[in-house]
Amino acid sequence: MRMVAGWARDAGLEPALDPHGNLWAARDGDGPVASSGSHVDTVPDGGRYDGALGTVLALEAAAVAPNAPIALLVCAAEEAPRFGAGTLGSRLAVGTLDEAALDRLRDTGGTTARAARDAFLRELSDLPRIEALPLERVHRHVEVHVEQRHELRGRGAQLGVVAHVAAPHRHEIVVDGVAGHAGEVAMADRRDALAAAAELVLALEAAARAAPPPTVATVGAMRVEPGAVSAVPGRVTLELEARGIDPDAIAAVEADLGAAIDDVTRRRGVQVHRRLLRDGAPVALDAPLVEAARRAAARLGIEAVTTHSGAGHDAQHLASRAPCALLFVPLVGGESHTPQEEADAHAIAAAANVLVDLLTRWDG
Amino acid sequence: MRMVAGWARDAGLEPALDPHGNLWAARDGDGPVASSGSHVDTVPDGGRYDGALGTVLALEAAAVAPNAPIALLVCAAEEAPRFGAGTLGSRLAVGTLDEAALDRLRDTGGTTARAARDAFLRELSDLPRIEALPLERVHRHVEVHVEQRHELRGRGAQLGVVAHVAAPHRHEIVVDGVAGHAGEVAMADRRDALAAAAELVLALEAAARAAPPPTVATVGAMRVEPGAVSAVPGRVTLELEARGIDPDAIAAVEADLGAAIDDVTRRRGVQVHRRLLRDGAPVALDAPLVEAARRAAARLGIEAVTTHSGAGHDAQHLASRAPCALLFVPLVGGESHTPQEEADAHAIAAAANVLVDLLTRWDG
Repeated sequence: MRMVAGWARDAGLEPALDPHGNLWAARDGDGPVASSGSHVDTVPDGGRYDGALGTVLALEAAAVAPNAPIALLVCAAEEAPRFGAGTLGSRLAVGTLDEAALDRLRDTGGTTARAARDAFLRELSDLPRIEALPLERVHRHVEVHVEQRHELRGRGAQLGVVAHVAAPHRHEIVVDGVAGHAGEVAMADRRDALAAAAELVLALEAAARAAPPPTVATVGAMRVEPGAVSAVPGRVTLELEARGIDPDAIAAVEADLGAAIDDVTRRRGVQVHRRLLRDGAPVALDAPLVEAARRAAARLGIEAVTTHSGAGHDAQHLASRAPCALLFVPLVGGESHTPQEEADAHAIAAAANVLVDLLTRWDG
Repeated sequence: MRMVAGWARDAGLEPALDPHGNLWAARDGDGPVASSGSHVDTVPDGGRYDGALGTVLALEAAAVAPNAPIALLVCAAEEAPRFGAGTLGSRLAVGTLDEAALDRLRDTGGTTARAARDAFLRELSDLPRIEALPLERVHRHVEVHVEQRHELRGRGAQLGVVAHVAAPHRHEIVVDGVAGHAGEVAMADRRDALAAAAELVLALEAAARAAPPPTVATVGAMRVEPGAVSAVPGRVTLELEARGIDPDAIAAVEADLGAAIDDVTRRRGVQVHRRLLRDGAPVALDAPLVEAARRAAARLGIEAVTTHSGAGHDAQHLASRAPCALLFVPLVGGESHTPQEEADAHAIAAAANVLVDLLTRWDG
């Protein structure tokens, strides 16, 4: 953040941190601006492009268009795996997340997200501060990000213009069976929580396979108790999600999961408790801005396709306050969020040109 | 152990610890003895009878037959969940486990079983020591233990005479799929390690259900990596076991598991590695001693039935060095290894009378 603030000054912008740790940098004045940026954190052992690419291109845009009202917005804690969360800075800025939520998010050592944020701000106390992001000044916001699946190259595209961002619906499921001695409880007498949970894993997978792409569902985490090879599992806790850009398809997957829970409860004599951890609707990004991005690409001779994002991004949250666009640079080789994450220099230049066009041409 | 050593002295026995922490107590002399005992450790939050019952009854037998050559043998670390193991003392004494194995067993804090054993021996340095258990003097060994499932009461029995002890075959299975972003990897492109593991959990359960009782199989532990709700699982590690008293049935369950692994590997494009952690054959206890126990019960007017043990016990290991018997006292209410574990005083007295009979009558 300190390094990016320095680069912002070099580009003629005045950097400052908001109370959530988001970095804002604009030229003098308080008129309308077109903002751009992404994030500077990434996951442990992540790649070089995630977040950093969009941050650097926003700085480049400001540098190559010194007379345009371009602002930089770098959001804090876009990746927050330490707290099992993400896009904290942008959600706090637009008000869909409140300070109290930061007290409920704790890392494995017990530190709250609020304490971590406060330590982050103390560490950056040399940077100027603002009381809030001036989102009322933002006329449009454009984020460039590396693609996080392998789609664009396969479609022969140099650029992806995101029209929809998926929303994950997250659930915690607790299966309560009856623990027992793995050598003494006969098969017929068991209420094995793990066997019941295994049926739910497969039922969720089948439901998502039956749904129209790009609907997906994942059981990503599972805890087995007591968790000894000599004990029949008495309790299993699952964390799962369904996501997509079609709310009806997500609802259908969740309904199938509910039916599987009813079935396994009745058939196996276990109890299953489901708790919704996170809800939300898929986000449609600003249609005129999506169209403007496609027109800009066509004008510049860049092969662009309309696509969706399965992953969450700050732009989808900022979209509640200003027209937003999200541009994807093709992922070439490697997976995103790994050190092998790779993007092509020509495609990056293409995205940069479209970005500058969107930020400097006011055809809205 | 110190308390039991004191009680042994009160009963006219001379207590001493062997190098593995096993407690031996016999009257003066070096002639043949009939030994008895169980263990004094139990699981965390365990019950009052597990191990303690057989230890106290052995002391009672020595006390009521002051002229009989009865010895006490209390084995160390029968329960060793801290190290994911069990019956360490008896296996070390008979030589089926060696010292090097203790260096490989570590608790979650990294302490080895050897270091823990050495600390245990230092703590009990006030007790006399012997260089080895004098197993060559043991003419027969009888262990009384509380039943660890609910079988005997249902069969109308006051006593269970164990003829066979099941052997667990334990395996570690590692399923390697491909981790990825839970929002970005399409269902058709996934190699989800958890979904593959779920199929193996259910296949093992189905195999054990199809096998003749009392064959059982259990996946007791599972670790999912990376283990985040937003990540498709890339690796799942399972610990599982199959056990029973019929080696062919155990082999059939393991063959079914192998077929399921082949199937899931081929169908899902994952890799599965299986490692045998523990092997072994079911143990048949000494047939003449089993018969003697049944005759003693009949003589005393006690309803006794022949049964098996699914759980492991020290007696099955000592059986490699001397004729051994294992007597079960019915479990009434509650589960073994829980604070609700309960046994009936009349049934305990019945077991005590059969025990004294077996230890003092030399009809072999």
